[in-house]
Amino acid sequence: MKRRDFIKKVGVGVAAATAATAAKAPYVIAKKKYFWKMVTTWPPHFPVLGEGADKFAKWVEELSDGRMKIQVYGGGELVPALGVFDAVRSGNVEMGHSASYYWAGKAPAAQFFAAVPFGMNAQEVNAWFYGGNGWKLWKELYASFGLVPFPAGNTGVQMGGWFNKKINSIDDYKGLKMRIPGLGGKVIAKAGATAVLVAGGEIYTNLERGVIDATEWVGPYHDYLMGFYKAAKYYYYPGWHEPGTVLEIMINKKAWDKLPKDLQAIITTAAARSNIWMLSEFEAKNEYYLEKLVKEHHVQLLKFPDDVLKSLKKHAKEAIEELVEKDKTGFSKKVYTDYMKFFNQIEKWHKISENAYAHALSL
Amino acid sequence: MKRRDFIKKVGVGVAAATAATAAKAPYVIAKKKYFWKMVTTWPPHFPVLGEGADKFAKWVEELSDGRMKIQVYGGGELVPALGVFDAVRSGNVEMGHSASYYWAGKAPAAQFFAAVPFGMNAQEVNAWFYGGNGWKLWKELYASFGLVPFPAGNTGVQMGGWFNKKINSIDDYKGLKMRIPGLGGKVIAKAGATAVLVAGGEIYTNLERGVIDATEWVGPYHDYLMGFYKAAKYYYYPGWHEPGTVLEIMINKKAWDKLPKDLQAIITTAAARSNIWMLSEFEAKNEYYLEKLVKEHHVQLLKFPDDVLKSLKKHAKEAIEELVEKDKTGFSKKVYTDYMKFFNQIEKWHKISENAYAHALSL
Repeated sequence: MKRRDFIKKVGVGVAAATAATAAKAPYVIAKKKYFWKMVTTWPPHFPVLGEGADKFAKWVEELSDGRMKIQVYGGGELVPALGVFDAVRSGNVEMGHSASYYWAGKAPAAQFFAAVPFGMNAQEVNAWFYGGNGWKLWKELYASFGLVPFPAGNTGVQMGGWFNKKINSIDDYKGLKMRIPGLGGKVIAKAGATAVLVAGGEIYTNLERGVIDATEWVGPYHDYLMGFYKAAKYYYYPGWHEPGTVLEIMINKKAWDKLPKDLQAIITTAAARSNIWMLSEFEAKNEYYLEKLVKEHHVQLLKFPDDVLKSLKKHAKEAIEELVEKDKTGFSKKVYTDYMKFFNQIEKWHKISENAYAHALSL
Repeated sequence: MKRRDFIKKVGVGVAAATAATAAKAPYVIAKKKYFWKMVTTWPPHFPVLGEGADKFAKWVEELSDGRMKIQVYGGGELVPALGVFDAVRSGNVEMGHSASYYWAGKAPAAQFFAAVPFGMNAQEVNAWFYGGNGWKLWKELYASFGLVPFPAGNTGVQMGGWFNKKINSIDDYKGLKMRIPGLGGKVIAKAGATAVLVAGGEIYTNLERGVIDATEWVGPYHDYLMGFYKAAKYYYYPGWHEPGTVLEIMINKKAWDKLPKDLQAIITTAAARSNIWMLSEFEAKNEYYLEKLVKEHHVQLLKFPDDVLKSLKKHAKEAIEELVEKDKTGFSKKVYTDYMKFFNQIEKWHKISENAYAHALSL
């Protein structure tokens, strides 16, 4: 995929409801057929994220022997990219594919189910979902909106972002205008930066023209396709603000409750497959694109200095505690408490397993 | 589960074919029903591994709305624990649940699809399977035995094992009798130790009576249930010999080819769900049991010294290269080359993502 095509997809597409209408034509069979719509936050067929949504729909059709067909819409095709939550909540569409931190304005606690600065990585957050209380709490939160959530993908540890000046000390954040959404934005604001919200399709131009000084996106594979290397020199790591971002599938609860048990099991299982597929896809491709960036495009790969990371970590704790404090429903506190309890436990285990093993490999 | 019950399960059970026979009773329906048998290497309902096999069977039944029922047999119930490969290959049963390093005698290259000392961890090996050539190569290898393989679980980084003397230098391996199967055993043999094969149910007694000086098993959760803390003082980490052991499902190819497409998709998808579930289950429980071991049973948790790990790593490389050299089919070489190419790439990426992030957290 060329950068030009990729960028086009990041822009907003046109409504394309024709296929869905056709799919509603009568069809006589013994078992009831289901024709659902899934709106997504991603451009149509967007690498990994949109592909993940497409694959999920294809798997559900295969698994159900054609009894359930899901028509996937890119962001802006049926509803705006960030209109997914409301569209599914209202029941206008049955299903959505997105990331829960986009709904922080409606449910602050939702952020804990997507990405927490200096929080859990992919393997840890999956253990929290499937082996701890994570998914249970997420279901509880979404139930109050008439929704059912599913973990359905993960980006792994992201990159720290693209900068046009070096970050040598925490003071270098002062006055910096950076495109960075969610809690990450709140963290750098505490260091004196201005967090700017820019839609995917406009980041490159903004960066090139100096409207923003820096941006984060995902990781080498996606960032390469976005062409940021043409507009920024320094590529920082690690992505402390998104150490294992979870992609979600959400379903309107009334639509869900009407599904027979086997189709419910099919959706649940296809979502789990999507979760492991998406992470694997990012992980398998990142280094290849990172090397292209460094070798072919002479990007300077830089590590955030330890002092900077230490300060950001302190600010992250403050930002999260403020969010918890502000959420008068008390749900953020409930989720944060469970999240941290699980994280502290698994972090201890990973010190002597994953981390000690990484050390052994480095010898 | 009590240690006594757990140990009983590690022993060999009795044949229990009754249920399978009953399942073959005629049943008139429109779509063909499938009643399959799955033999496993694990004791019946063995925590995580056996549970994973049970869950997989339950999911397949749910997903297929009862069209496919899989009767799960513990090791020794229908065929011996290590008779899984031959039983599925012959077509006597349709399906097996095990780990591919057990078949090293028949196909040396099979070891690369289970565990490689100083090799890839769970997240990396999944990226190799789903986003690289790993699964493709595994299918190619198993096809020559009339089998179809699926990744279906992972233990994560294991522990290094239980010892009754401290390992202060590589010389402490000289004369050490340790229960450690597969390539790990070949590695410590190079350091002068004797690798002993002991069935799960007999390890504890052998360790207590001094027949062996040391043993490895899985990780804190399983090891606690095995009661090894009563027979050994020192618990070493990290498990350099099994950094992300893959559990497998294998299917007789003729039986597989006769399945309709939707049931094939159901098995494929349920296996992926099992893969992520099993790892999450181990990961969520290990620290809890590790703390019980240390706090309640005063186990001494010790890290292998760097010098020891360095020597073991060198021996591991030698052992793997010997295996590759000896495999006259050339397939081990083909797999090892691809494995190492992928590993080198993803290891570079993990240095600046996962590992750099773990460092940031430690500040």
